[in-house]
Amino acid sequence: MSKRKICVVITARPSYSRVKTVLQAIKEHPALELQLVVSGSALLERYGTAINYIEQDGFSVNSKVFNVLEGENLMSAAKTTGIGILELSTVFNNLQPDIIVTVADRFETMATAVAATYMNIPLAHIQGGEVTGNIDEKVRHSITKLADYHFVSSEGARERVIKMGEEPQFVFNTGCPSIDLADLVLSNPVLDFHPVEKYGGVGAPKETFRNGYLVVMQHPVTNEYKDARRQVEETLFAVKEASIPTLWFWPNVDAGSDGTSKGIRSFREREYNVPIHFLKNMEPLDFLKVLKNSLCLVGNSSVGIRECAWMGVPVVNIGTRQNRRDQGINVINVDYSHKEISDAITHQIAQGHYKSDGIYGGGSAGILIADHLANLPLRFHKTITY
Amino acid sequence: MSKRKICVVITARPSYSRVKTVLQAIKEHPALELQLVVSGSALLERYGTAINYIEQDGFSVNSKVFNVLEGENLMSAAKTTGIGILELSTVFNNLQPDIIVTVADRFETMATAVAATYMNIPLAHIQGGEVTGNIDEKVRHSITKLADYHFVSSEGARERVIKMGEEPQFVFNTGCPSIDLADLVLSNPVLDFHPVEKYGGVGAPKETFRNGYLVVMQHPVTNEYKDARRQVEETLFAVKEASIPTLWFWPNVDAGSDGTSKGIRSFREREYNVPIHFLKNMEPLDFLKVLKNSLCLVGNSSVGIRECAWMGVPVVNIGTRQNRRDQGINVINVDYSHKEISDAITHQIAQGHYKSDGIYGGGSAGILIADHLANLPLRFHKTITY
Amino acid sequence: MSKRKICVVITARPSYSRVKTVLQAIKEHPALELQLVVSGSALLERYGTAINYIEQDGFSVNSKVFNVLEGENLMSAAKTTGIGILELSTVFNNLQPDIIVTVADRFETMATAVAATYMNIPLAHIQGGEVTGNIDEKVRHSITKLADYHFVSSEGARERVIKMGEEPQFVFNTGCPSIDLADLVLSNPVLDFHPVEKYGGVGAPKETFRNGYLVVMQHPVTNEYKDARRQVEETLFAVKEASIPTLWFWPNVDAGSDGTSKGIRSFREREYNVPIHFLKNMEPLDFLKVLKNSLCLVGNSSVGIRECAWMGVPVVNIGTRQNRRDQGINVINVDYSHKEISDAITHQIAQGHYKSDGIYGGGSAGILIADHLANLPLRFHKTITY
Amino acid sequence: MSKRKICVVITARPSYSRVKTVLQAIKEHPALELQLVVSGSALLERYGTAINYIEQDGFSVNSKVFNVLEGENLMSAAKTTGIGILELSTVFNNLQPDIIVTVADRFETMATAVAATYMNIPLAHIQGGEVTGNIDEKVRHSITKLADYHFVSSEGARERVIKMGEEPQFVFNTGCPSIDLADLVLSNPVLDFHPVEKYGGVGAPKETFRNGYLVVMQHPVTNEYKDARRQVEETLFAVKEASIPTLWFWPNVDAGSDGTSKGIRSFREREYNVPIHFLKNMEPLDFLKVLKNSLCLVGNSSVGIRECAWMGVPVVNIGTRQNRRDQGINVINVDYSHKEISDAITHQIAQGHYKSDGIYGGGSAGILIADHLANLPLRFHKTITY
Repeated sequence: MSKRKICVVITARPSYSRVKTVLQAIKEHPALELQLVVSGSALLERYGTAINYIEQDGFSVNSKVFNVLEGENLMSAAKTTGIGILELSTVFNNLQPDIIVTVADRFETMATAVAATYMNIPLAHIQGGEVTGNIDEKVRHSITKLADYHFVSSEGARERVIKMGEEPQFVFNTGCPSIDLADLVLSNPVLDFHPVEKYGGVGAPKETFRNGYLVVMQHPVTNEYKDARRQVEETLFAVKEASIPTLWFWPNVDAGSDGTSKGIRSFREREYNVPIHFLKNMEPLDFLKVLKNSLCLVGNSSVGIRECAWMGVPVVNIGTRQNRRDQGINVINVDYSHKEISDAITHQIAQGHYKSDGIYGGGSAGILIADHLANLPLRFHKTITY
Repeated sequence: MSKRKICVVITARPSYSRVKTVLQAIKEHPALELQLVVSGSALLERYGTAINYIEQDGFSVNSKVFNVLEGENLMSAAKTTGIGILELSTVFNNLQPDIIVTVADRFETMATAVAATYMNIPLAHIQGGEVTGNIDEKVRHSITKLADYHFVSSEGARERVIKMGEEPQFVFNTGCPSIDLADLVLSNPVLDFHPVEKYGGVGAPKETFRNGYLVVMQHPVTNEYKDARRQVEETLFAVKEASIPTLWFWPNVDAGSDGTSKGIRSFREREYNVPIHFLKNMEPLDFLKVLKNSLCLVGNSSVGIRECAWMGVPVVNIGTRQNRRDQGINVINVDYSHKEISDAITHQIAQGHYKSDGIYGGGSAGILIADHLANLPLRFHKTITY
Repeated sequence: MSKRKICVVITARPSYSRVKTVLQAIKEHPALELQLVVSGSALLERYGTAINYIEQDGFSVNSKVFNVLEGENLMSAAKTTGIGILELSTVFNNLQPDIIVTVADRFETMATAVAATYMNIPLAHIQGGEVTGNIDEKVRHSITKLADYHFVSSEGARERVIKMGEEPQFVFNTGCPSIDLADLVLSNPVLDFHPVEKYGGVGAPKETFRNGYLVVMQHPVTNEYKDARRQVEETLFAVKEASIPTLWFWPNVDAGSDGTSKGIRSFREREYNVPIHFLKNMEPLDFLKVLKNSLCLVGNSSVGIRECAWMGVPVVNIGTRQNRRDQGINVINVDYSHKEISDAITHQIAQGHYKSDGIYGGGSAGILIADHLANLPLRFHKTITY
Repeated sequence: MSKRKICVVITARPSYSRVKTVLQAIKEHPALELQLVVSGSALLERYGTAINYIEQDGFSVNSKVFNVLEGENLMSAAKTTGIGILELSTVFNNLQPDIIVTVADRFETMATAVAATYMNIPLAHIQGGEVTGNIDEKVRHSITKLADYHFVSSEGARERVIKMGEEPQFVFNTGCPSIDLADLVLSNPVLDFHPVEKYGGVGAPKETFRNGYLVVMQHPVTNEYKDARRQVEETLFAVKEASIPTLWFWPNVDAGSDGTSKGIRSFREREYNVPIHFLKNMEPLDFLKVLKNSLCLVGNSSVGIRECAWMGVPVVNIGTRQNRRDQGINVINVDYSHKEISDAITHQIAQGHYKSDGIYGGGSAGILIADHLANLPLRFHKTITY
């Protein structure tokens, strides 16, 4: 019998990290054939060339889709989505998948969902139903209404997707696949490499990172993109005050990332003695190990809400980006204020690591999702339940 | 004080017909400035060049957007959406509207919604919350989750939109603006022109249309596009059997319209004596008058469900396209079967016209919507209510 | 040794007809692998779906590229080229051809040439160096300056290409491949099918075509597209006056084809007794046989200048489209005037068929081109010779 | 009488610099109205945001066109052109210019030329007819065959354009407008600002630049883009050997610029003591003053061939990019070899500045071009002269 063809579209570094175990489980499933499409910022060097890690991890890529229109303003974000649809529809037409899988809520995700919908290809969505209060939420719920199958990460998400009118038999709380990797780290938490040595980057020298360090990951917020520079500067100032060695990761491509980058570059030129080291990207597992061994994660990345919950890493979550997302006990929320950020860092370091919180699942999401993909009835036709 | 700029995007003949009174009310509102964008099939001659009617009605068009990629297959439909986003984002950037208004649920509608969302421009949606059971439903609800304001056509639709997690204070049951025009017809129902004389077309001669006639309007169904030809042939055969003079309107551009057109052309060449006259388009008011004075409407157009409910016109509704839409007492539903269609036509003609059913509103939607647009707080940022 | 991959892009019905023997010769050449891409109007039903003939002729198509943006105005023609580049670059990236072959001078041809050039893929051009005096000429010579190899159709063309600064060792007068097919017809000229019976179409009944007939093929002229309707009406009127049975072929998609189509449709509705039969398309060989057996070809198609020269068919060439192209003795040139057209038809019928004129080659272009493609050094880098 | 509308499309920093005096002359001409479109890398921060200088110089921009698709591979360059055509055709349709002006030979230039051609808008080309031996040459001559008017920079270029079959009365040797600015510098050559102080950048401190300095500007070569990194490293090494303070300008966006940037970044991290200061961009006049006051220009920029000829600045020209361009006495040509580069630098410094060479004109190109634009007959229809 021919295998069911599952086409997964990866559009950004964090998406890959999140679904790596899903890709692995699909690849290893006897009834499934993995078709992997890589697009958006996942292909671009200045956002860390996630594609390199994907290929190093042993996945073969069926198609690369370049669709990022330079400009980093709102119109370019819209056009990037338009180009994404133009390009992905060709790819889907060539690959003829049985199911297309899209992840999360970024604008490239929307391109995948629209192309699949118009081409009558069954669409599965990972990480629907979550509440964040920012503009991504519109896109996320909008994709839910296009998707035929929903693999959600928490019980709250499952309830929300069903409330939106989706049929319960197509909504599955598999836990978040990102937790699968975090779970691996828990079983082997030793930091067996030096981040600066292995990954390069610029800033503070390797020797700085001996006795504990912070990790910072702060993305521009789509609907506040004009403030991106000021927002990142508050964090830079707080980290300067803390005077603790810091590993700082560059942000995603997005409206506002020019502002963020500018803030960082300008700071670096003025403040060359602050012990911050700037990095582009890491293999996902290495990244989680770096987090597990850090004093605290600072910023607005969803990794703080998800993986860090299961790994017990203290998090200072800044601003609105993770606004209303369900949170574990490991998170302190603060505003864009260097004072608030600085105080929260102090508090979290004093507190130390937390115990595991299973709010986003406990490590088997990849296998569960692959099993569902192998067994679900194919459909691209649905109607609201009420 | 400067007027609030309201940009309405018209993408197809039926959309224009539906929102004409909204355009009029915006244009006449002292606090609003109308920005009119015409795109998709509304610009194309083989779909009736709706733009001509728009301009004859006294509206000035701010921008014309050509985005229909020829091919009439599913991939082209997806690419048409992608091109729509590329082009509309430029238009929105030039016009800088305060609110963008999108209508209903076709694929061009999605392009408007995505471009508005990514550009942080408040989005109003007309005719959300309806249930039809076809692929358009995915798109309709997906747009609901992108829209900031909802102008729905029935109480059932209002309840559904709120259930999907939209804030009740931004969901308004204004009735359907298409009913505004139907209401005008009720106050002056006389057919004061001859359809064939005024609108040309090909087929049965003018003299045929003396003592009662049928109207047919049948669109291909997006997710059944391979059957488009067979489906239209059942209707052609039923009309041939009925042997009643018939005004037949060409379908929308859509996946499948090639099949529909082919079926019609092939029938015409074989059956030149059947009293069918084929027309491309009419001014909306004329079209409603033609319906009001017909024996029965046959096909799958939403006009049968909406305007005909208020005007009391008997309708034979074929197939799945209006599947689960709330219906008035004037509708009989049948399958793609010339026998069923033929029987239902006989029954409806015997029955005669029905009395008005206000299920989709009663004639003031345009004015209500314009008033809301003038007074609503501007926002492009929302979160689900649960 | 691996075969050299030759990617030929077919964009319209006439291009296919012209290079069919080239495709055949590449396919049969032991050192070559044919990669066939079909795009533009060659895929569209309303322009005759050339792809059907291509597949019936036993060619397998590697990729179909839908790029025609509806609108038939000048802006849409430009955008169709832009979309063509977007789509073809993906195709070329997937196919990785050693040489790309582009034919003639239409706007889709430009998309192929630009994509090949920017992707550093050697580009061969068939039918460069010709002079026509219309806007296509700009495009043709512009492609010459992008092309690495030139397969021209006449001695005059070869001299012109070299004068433009191309290296003589890369400019080959192979004759026009369209003549290869015309040559086959000469060896078996009997019309062994009935055009109306085999190809359908609408208009005059089959019986009309007993004792001699005209063929008409008239395309809109790109830089006179506003006059397209009037221009075609002069021809329609002339044919009506001639009152000779006529096979009329629908025009190419192009700026102006809406006008041409409109003129034809409107004429047909008024003048249903004129003995014209309208056809969409024919297999190339059948088409040449129809020409060989006609009294005269009327219009502005290049087939009148090329194939008809070798086959000795009398031609009435209208207007500017073939303006300055080298012509054989079989052609009379007239203006857009029903009087001039009518007189020339009378003259040509009186004259009868001419003898073969080898100005565009004598029947082995396909084989010569394939041989060159197999043996030429690969290069995408050139400089002007002066 | 209404003014003739002249639409100039600027696509990159160097293009602006080259035609600034043309823009000024059009703006000031009583019979002309300037329509300025800025696109491509001229809008992007990482290529110096030329738009800022344009606006500071007092030009108002009618439209900004974002068309650069990220990826910096050959397919992206092709797609960038395709997107350019899609976007520019909308802009031209909105602006309805009488003449469109395109500059030089980069891929964005091609998008302008194709859109203008298909839209039947008269096209003027500045800097045609030059010979460089690289891939840009194909594009340049290809644009010549699309352009209706030619404003060339040297007598050799004029002869070549005419030889290619252009009518002599539409080919004007106005000199290169870039020389107009160089001429201004000659009348006031004092360096009245400190480059590092005024323009920032990173690397060697300001104090380094006291007693003479080199300038480096090296672009990746389109058809050698895989070698971009190695090529730039040879120059970096040569400059390191020379040990003379150096102002180094970042390259254009282009296939290969990732490689160039990588080479530079990696060098900077290893060799922090080499006295190089890296800059993004300068106002054109400032840039020429910096050149005029330098010891020598190193790299492959056309500024070395043109402006430096008139200003007498010694130039070490590396590799194939300016291969066959007509050169003045101020240039030494070398290969991608740190040894050759280093030797040539030594020789040029010993030699000192040269006297003015008028090979590319003498300072009034802007005014001459504006006058022609005001008086030329409008045409978009031409034919080859032989």
